[in-house]
Amino acid sequence: MRYPLIPVIVALAVVPAGFAYVHWTKGGSGAGLYSRHWSPDPGQGYWDPDNFYQSPNGVQGVFQGQQCIQCHEGITPGIVSDWRASRHARVQEPVDCAACHGDDHQHLRLPTPHVCGGCHEKQYGEFRDEARYGFPSHVLAMQRAVDAKHFVDKPKAEVQACIQCHSVATKCDSCHSRHRFDPAEARRPEACITCHSGPPHPDDETYFASAHGRLYLAEGNGWDWSKPLRKGNYKAPGCAYCHMEGGRHQVAHKSIWRFGLREINPHTSQNQVLRARWVALCSDCHEAVQAAQWLSDMDRERERAWDKLYAAEDLLKDLRADDGLYPAAGERPPYPMDWLDRLWPRERIGFFEGQASAFYNVSAIERDYFEMWYFDNLGAYKAAAHGDSAGVEAGHARMNGMLEKIGAQARKLRELTNAERKATGKRSAPGDLWLSGAYTEHNREHN
Amino acid sequence: MRYPLIPVIVALAVVPAGFAYVHWTKGGSGAGLYSRHWSPDPGQGYWDPDNFYQSPNGVQGVFQGQQCIQCHEGITPGIVSDWRASRHARVQEPVDCAACHGDDHQHLRLPTPHVCGGCHEKQYGEFRDEARYGFPSHVLAMQRAVDAKHFVDKPKAEVQACIQCHSVATKCDSCHSRHRFDPAEARRPEACITCHSGPPHPDDETYFASAHGRLYLAEGNGWDWSKPLRKGNYKAPGCAYCHMEGGRHQVAHKSIWRFGLREINPHTSQNQVLRARWVALCSDCHEAVQAAQWLSDMDRERERAWDKLYAAEDLLKDLRADDGLYPAAGERPPYPMDWLDRLWPRERIGFFEGQASAFYNVSAIERDYFEMWYFDNLGAYKAAAHGDSAGVEAGHARMNGMLEKIGAQARKLRELTNAERKATGKRSAPGDLWLSGAYTEHNREHN
Amino acid sequence: MRYPLIPVIVALAVVPAGFAYVHWTKGGSGAGLYSRHWSPDPGQGYWDPDNFYQSPNGVQGVFQGQQCIQCHEGITPGIVSDWRASRHARVQEPVDCAACHGDDHQHLRLPTPHVCGGCHEKQYGEFRDEARYGFPSHVLAMQRAVDAKHFVDKPKAEVQACIQCHSVATKCDSCHSRHRFDPAEARRPEACITCHSGPPHPDDETYFASAHGRLYLAEGNGWDWSKPLRKGNYKAPGCAYCHMEGGRHQVAHKSIWRFGLREINPHTSQNQVLRARWVALCSDCHEAVQAAQWLSDMDRERERAWDKLYAAEDLLKDLRADDGLYPAAGERPPYPMDWLDRLWPRERIGFFEGQASAFYNVSAIERDYFEMWYFDNLGAYKAAAHGDSAGVEAGHARMNGMLEKIGAQARKLRELTNAERKATGKRSAPGDLWLSGAYTEHNREHN
Repeated sequence: MRYPLIPVIVALAVVPAGFAYVHWTKGGSGAGLYSRHWSPDPGQGYWDPDNFYQSPNGVQGVFQGQQCIQCHEGITPGIVSDWRASRHARVQEPVDCAACHGDDHQHLRLPTPHVCGGCHEKQYGEFRDEARYGFPSHVLAMQRAVDAKHFVDKPKAEVQACIQCHSVATKCDSCHSRHRFDPAEARRPEACITCHSGPPHPDDETYFASAHGRLYLAEGNGWDWSKPLRKGNYKAPGCAYCHMEGGRHQVAHKSIWRFGLREINPHTSQNQVLRARWVALCSDCHEAVQAAQWLSDMDRERERAWDKLYAAEDLLKDLRADDGLYPAAGERPPYPMDWLDRLWPRERIGFFEGQASAFYNVSAIERDYFEMWYFDNLGAYKAAAHGDSAGVEAGHARMNGMLEKIGAQARKLRELTNAERKATGKRSAPGDLWLSGAYTEHNREHN
Repeated sequence: MRYPLIPVIVALAVVPAGFAYVHWTKGGSGAGLYSRHWSPDPGQGYWDPDNFYQSPNGVQGVFQGQQCIQCHEGITPGIVSDWRASRHARVQEPVDCAACHGDDHQHLRLPTPHVCGGCHEKQYGEFRDEARYGFPSHVLAMQRAVDAKHFVDKPKAEVQACIQCHSVATKCDSCHSRHRFDPAEARRPEACITCHSGPPHPDDETYFASAHGRLYLAEGNGWDWSKPLRKGNYKAPGCAYCHMEGGRHQVAHKSIWRFGLREINPHTSQNQVLRARWVALCSDCHEAVQAAQWLSDMDRERERAWDKLYAAEDLLKDLRADDGLYPAAGERPPYPMDWLDRLWPRERIGFFEGQASAFYNVSAIERDYFEMWYFDNLGAYKAAAHGDSAGVEAGHARMNGMLEKIGAQARKLRELTNAERKATGKRSAPGDLWLSGAYTEHNREHN
Repeated sequence: MRYPLIPVIVALAVVPAGFAYVHWTKGGSGAGLYSRHWSPDPGQGYWDPDNFYQSPNGVQGVFQGQQCIQCHEGITPGIVSDWRASRHARVQEPVDCAACHGDDHQHLRLPTPHVCGGCHEKQYGEFRDEARYGFPSHVLAMQRAVDAKHFVDKPKAEVQACIQCHSVATKCDSCHSRHRFDPAEARRPEACITCHSGPPHPDDETYFASAHGRLYLAEGNGWDWSKPLRKGNYKAPGCAYCHMEGGRHQVAHKSIWRFGLREINPHTSQNQVLRARWVALCSDCHEAVQAAQWLSDMDRERERAWDKLYAAEDLLKDLRADDGLYPAAGERPPYPMDWLDRLWPRERIGFFEGQASAFYNVSAIERDYFEMWYFDNLGAYKAAAHGDSAGVEAGHARMNGMLEKIGAQARKLRELTNAERKATGKRSAPGDLWLSGAYTEHNREHN
């Protein structure tokens, strides 16, 4: 009777051990699951001020509005004149420097959304509400980044670049640039494109390539951007007009295709609701029936894309089944944070195997599929969504090219493997090219 | 005496049979040679309204100007205010909604160039006149698209993106956005770049990278775009200034190099005439002798480009002669519309073999040449034409890279083929990778 | 005693022979070491007017200000109205046409920096002062171009594109476009981006992708560009604000990383001085401590980049040591101008072997490293320098991809070479694919 108890006892011990481990990993100075492993560069204080900002301590004293301005008018006149032009300065009781930064010069803070939300309750509430829709999301952007194993893995210098955009969750001046914080600025597409450009999300490029974007480019400078984002106020929409209609600080409530990262059923009842929201929005200017057709066009574009992506995925999975990936999972460096990956190395092919974590430490053919999926596919998706027809074609042309390349590579890898097996009875190992060497060492040391 | 009559009779029978077949293929609801095979997506109604637009039928009744506006002021205020700001609204007898769309709400139309030409005779005449110069052309853009076999072949969802730009032939709001139709807008480069951007025609990128484009970017918003496109009115030219000088709605009458698609002799007497037109135009601001030198620079750029392109073509043709293309024409899916391709499959290498139709269903090395020709070469051409010197270099660098890649691939393919022949007496067949499978099936079904 | 004198005599003879040869090579109509070999296209007169401009001689006579204007108002009204809007026209004694171009219509000149410097002494002095900092440099741009062997080598048509930007050394209208020469124009980023865009120096793309650039895009048209480049005058900096602060016509005096072309020690005492200049500049708007952190981030970015570049370099050098490069140096066309290259052909791998001269006539794997170094690495560098975080990631992603590709290629080349050696005792020669043929002939003839 004693032995059967052992697994029970083990199971009971594992649960608190797990909790303890998670608690332990969260013991660092930052936020998130891996904060103990996460020792960011100093620049990080700027992107995640709540956790990492360190006030300069060269100036001692407690200062109020006019005192701050007196000094900073000489030191940094630009930010003073921006504040003066802001609504903060022009209301009866000005929201001055100390209101946002505190008044003790040795313990200044950079304001977070929580600070701004003290006054701007509606916007802050909407912003936080986006969390309900899951990731991708603005409000979850930082948390999802620092909680990702593949993120903690990387040298911190490399991660700075990621954090810069993901900081949209931890401060408001990603869109409202300090110290003017002008809604008129945030209504313009430029407010979004610092982050929303380039692969994997060429929102910038595809919007500006569309008829909407072209109208903005030609005439947008003459439009009155102090007007709210309501129908009749703008000849053509910018990003915010469609994604934050009426000024709602939440962009997820019409999101059907979820960024194009995995195949979705565009006709679930939930997605029918979202679709109706899009049609209602497009009807500010266009015929409803036409708007519905555009959305159908997108469905078809996505269907085409997934046909191609699955074709590539099948090639890779077949190759894996035949042990033809080179180097295979066990032959390349394990993901540092992933102890399971050491014990049970496995390739991650496709979204549901965790491909999103696999953008390094992979073989060339897997990397090609990663790029086909993350860059070419998402590029086509964004182009379709924003009405950039040439971009759709370009994305699909790149996908076609990648599919061909992956096909040709797969054939070659299979031939090589078969020839080696025939000659030597086994496939050759890749040596330690990627398992050691200056770059790998550098990565390990600076992690 | 009877037998010699047989070929004569057959020949006589073939001619009416051909006519009958062509007549039959044109029996669909659209336009063009293959209209019977051409069943477009609903969105097409928007791009080719004359053939495919279906009026929404939810609203019953016959309405005139003020009645339309009364309703649409609430439903779609943006288009109403655009119309109000247009010259259509400000003339003594306003050109109102019904003038262009008809007055029966269940049988509305989207206006075509023919409708606009009812008043704008000069512009419409110039626009149609472009047909004399052959393709590429605005007025022939739609016809050439729907008449192309490789176009009818494709899934219609894929073709939407092509049609969006080719619709410049079938409606006027490609350049004059509704409902303001302001010539000032169409004079700006943004009017052109929705379509004229990206490979294979980076007019956008190369213009904005030029000294002309940079001046426009820096100062263009302050120029008075209500002025006609005449010398002295603009500090730097946009697209229309040079290509539609004086507002002529026809862009082909100075076209020397024909888009860079095939080698031309730039010194035919006809091209000397076109050259003189360019020199005259450039002389609005520059010395004539310098303008002539720029055109000579372009001649030389084209010569260099064709040296490289022919070098690549030779590699491919040699490889074809040795049966080294893989998969070869008969080993890949035939072009669905091309019954001749089933009987007599052949690779299409170079412009005069119909390479333009061969941007899919080809082997990797042929695709590389296609890209070298269609993307890299045309990119260099456009850069040279628009004064983007870095773009010329970039295009030629890509061509050099492609030439090297094609050379290396050709060597490998030849080695593989020879090794196989030596070992097995024949070259291996590629299997049915591309002849069947989900993507191919999808294409067949949705065609 | 006589024989030991021979080497002394030879040595003594070699020095004057060397001088004589250099003197002889400089005997052409242009400037620089190879001017005898350097017979540029006519267009060159425009880019290097001092050496090559030929006045049109169709009009005879000597003309002064009002006479010039009388004619040109009809012929080229645009340049007249530009001049009228310039400060040149509005001073008490106008700087008229003849002041810059001369008054003899058969011997007109295009003004060079020396001509402009006649009045604008301060700017001209600063401009020339940049030479002290070595290349890359504006003032040395033309000289370094025409003195480069790999430049003289090329067909002149190909070199036009390079010269167009390098002409920044030989005329002032690269930044101050004629005939208005407005400082307000030159303060805007567009003044720089005609040249500073695209690989290898995507200053354009990376600036506009930054928070600075986005602010400029959204609001820059409304800023008062007649103000000097001093703190408090602009909400966000353009290129000139940071690189030519206060209007200094010299951009090198804060240059730490020297364009990213080779690894530098960012902490030499000299670089500490430059770093302090950057921090002082950034402090116009930002905290000094933060500015220092950004510079540290760049140090780390560069460290990462060089780890990758050296890893690739090692792969190539190992391959060279094993005679695995294909075609190797002796198997491809020698650099025409480099007689040493005929006698002693050698691959140039890495900056210190002269890789910068090796962007053609190289094997595919060397070209890949060239692109990794010159395009991907410099792209990442520029992105880091300008605050374009996505660009940093994109550049490093491309570097990672290239490193993988080079690793895979190296493996394949080694396998091929070993297999050939095993089978035939030697590596096969590549044939004369690149040593002869239409393109090579064309290059030789047009050189």
